[in-house]
Amino acid sequence: MADAVVVACCQLAPRIGELEANRALAHDAVVDAADRGARVVVLPELMNSGYVFEGPDEAAGLAEALDGPTVTDWVALASEHALVVVGGVCERDVEGGILRNTAVIVDPSGLRAVYRKAHLWDREGHVFCAGDGPPPVADTVYGRIGVVVCYDLEFPEWMRLPALAGAELVCAPVNWPRESRPAGERPQEVVRVQASASVNRMFIAVADRVGRERGVDWVGGSVIVDPAGFPLVGPAGDEETVTVLASCELAQAREKRISPHNDVFADRRPDLYGAVANTS
Amino acid sequence: MADAVVVACCQLAPRIGELEANRALAHDAVVDAADRGARVVVLPELMNSGYVFEGPDEAAGLAEALDGPTVTDWVALASEHALVVVGGVCERDVEGGILRNTAVIVDPSGLRAVYRKAHLWDREGHVFCAGDGPPPVADTVYGRIGVVVCYDLEFPEWMRLPALAGAELVCAPVNWPRESRPAGERPQEVVRVQASASVNRMFIAVADRVGRERGVDWVGGSVIVDPAGFPLVGPAGDEETVTVLASCELAQAREKRISPHNDVFADRRPDLYGAVANTS
Repeated sequence: MADAVVVACCQLAPRIGELEANRALAHDAVVDAADRGARVVVLPELMNSGYVFEGPDEAAGLAEALDGPTVTDWVALASEHALVVVGGVCERDVEGGILRNTAVIVDPSGLRAVYRKAHLWDREGHVFCAGDGPPPVADTVYGRIGVVVCYDLEFPEWMRLPALAGAELVCAPVNWPRESRPAGERPQEVVRVQASASVNRMFIAVADRVGRERGVDWVGGSVIVDPAGFPLVGPAGDEETVTVLASCELAQAREKRISPHNDVFADRRPDLYGAVANTS
Repeated sequence: MADAVVVACCQLAPRIGELEANRALAHDAVVDAADRGARVVVLPELMNSGYVFEGPDEAAGLAEALDGPTVTDWVALASEHALVVVGGVCERDVEGGILRNTAVIVDPSGLRAVYRKAHLWDREGHVFCAGDGPPPVADTVYGRIGVVVCYDLEFPEWMRLPALAGAELVCAPVNWPRESRPAGERPQEVVRVQASASVNRMFIAVADRVGRERGVDWVGGSVIVDPAGFPLVGPAGDEETVTVLASCELAQAREKRISPHNDVFADRRPDLYGAVANTS
């Protein structure tokens, strides 16, 4: 396991509007994860702001640019502790004067990748502009790391893009609103992550939030899944503030063969995937 | 539940090369399922022949045309019991003089759809020619029913095709070779079926086989999953010959909205799915 890296997902409870407190919460969680050996740390979606905005005006008042204090702190932490940090921010996109539901990948060299969530959930469309760019993949000292945000995970075509670009690990900051499910069943959000990991033979690390916010509860369910689709740790509980950690040999994700004659990428038949099904 | 239909998946133990016995096994299982109220009956992959061929010659000796005794019997059963039957056959494709790993949809009016497995598993490529046609969807008296075969389930792009064509239920004859998995974990094959059902908001019904064959064991795990991705029945055990049944209100699968502002089809961004991920 010479090439193994410890990945941590920090399941935190940000509070809507409390920018400084949320920044401190993230800061302390990253330091704690680093102290416990983590070298890749994933934080939830919209970590700086909270999620359940009353509307676009409230979100605009909480948004910050990518050179603002949140990302700046993550870059400093990455440098000080030799980390990759992946987390979500409520972003004021200075180019367009618009708001974005954004996630960044930072490493000791600085801001490596910016991703604007492309599939918006529920009322997010009233607040954020969806991104048009594919999930980025950064070649870091710990491996090739991609990022998506929350509802993006429900579009398998989208998960293919970082996979085909060579991502060994896809990090997913999420805020998963909790829905009811049959007793004994894993949250469907986690099931979909497992399936995406296994069909792409890559690791996926998800950091969800907890803490009821304006009537919304959350799945929790932070999880690190291996390329076979099984959780290495988690899913976490739906109320606990917790950091889940797992040692991941990311190079395992370069192996796409799953039988003497099968390879999950080579076996794809993309020329047929634009077909229209025959109906009779 | 006026429009509910009982779907049955018959988890059987065919034996390699025993054509008549296998046909009788399928026949009796279909009659039994019909007696228990089923109107859609799913049978395993390669039901007529068994799976673990010594090579193409053995398979060729077992293959039959679509007007052969197996499909003819299923058509007769469908007519007699007012059924839709979906099952797998080792097919001699009379047009090409080649072998196909095929599944058919039959209903009381006869053979409604023919599907040749497009993604071949392991040594199947030495025996069968892969199909080039998308999964068909048949508009039956019980609903819109599609079909895929086994390894096809691992390609989410493929599952989209019948979903987008309006399939309310996709039936999947499979032969899932058993692999080890962590204690307490569901087979990854089942997890992927759950994810495909939920991202497409459709029912999926899987009939696997059991019965060790030339050293190969099987997952079993026959299952009927609802559009939320949860099993209505199953997964079955890995040794039991059993028919699992569930009442399915197939019209539920026409509802693709999952929040006041989300629709799993309308939220897709297919123009972006051909993108190449940014790497840095």
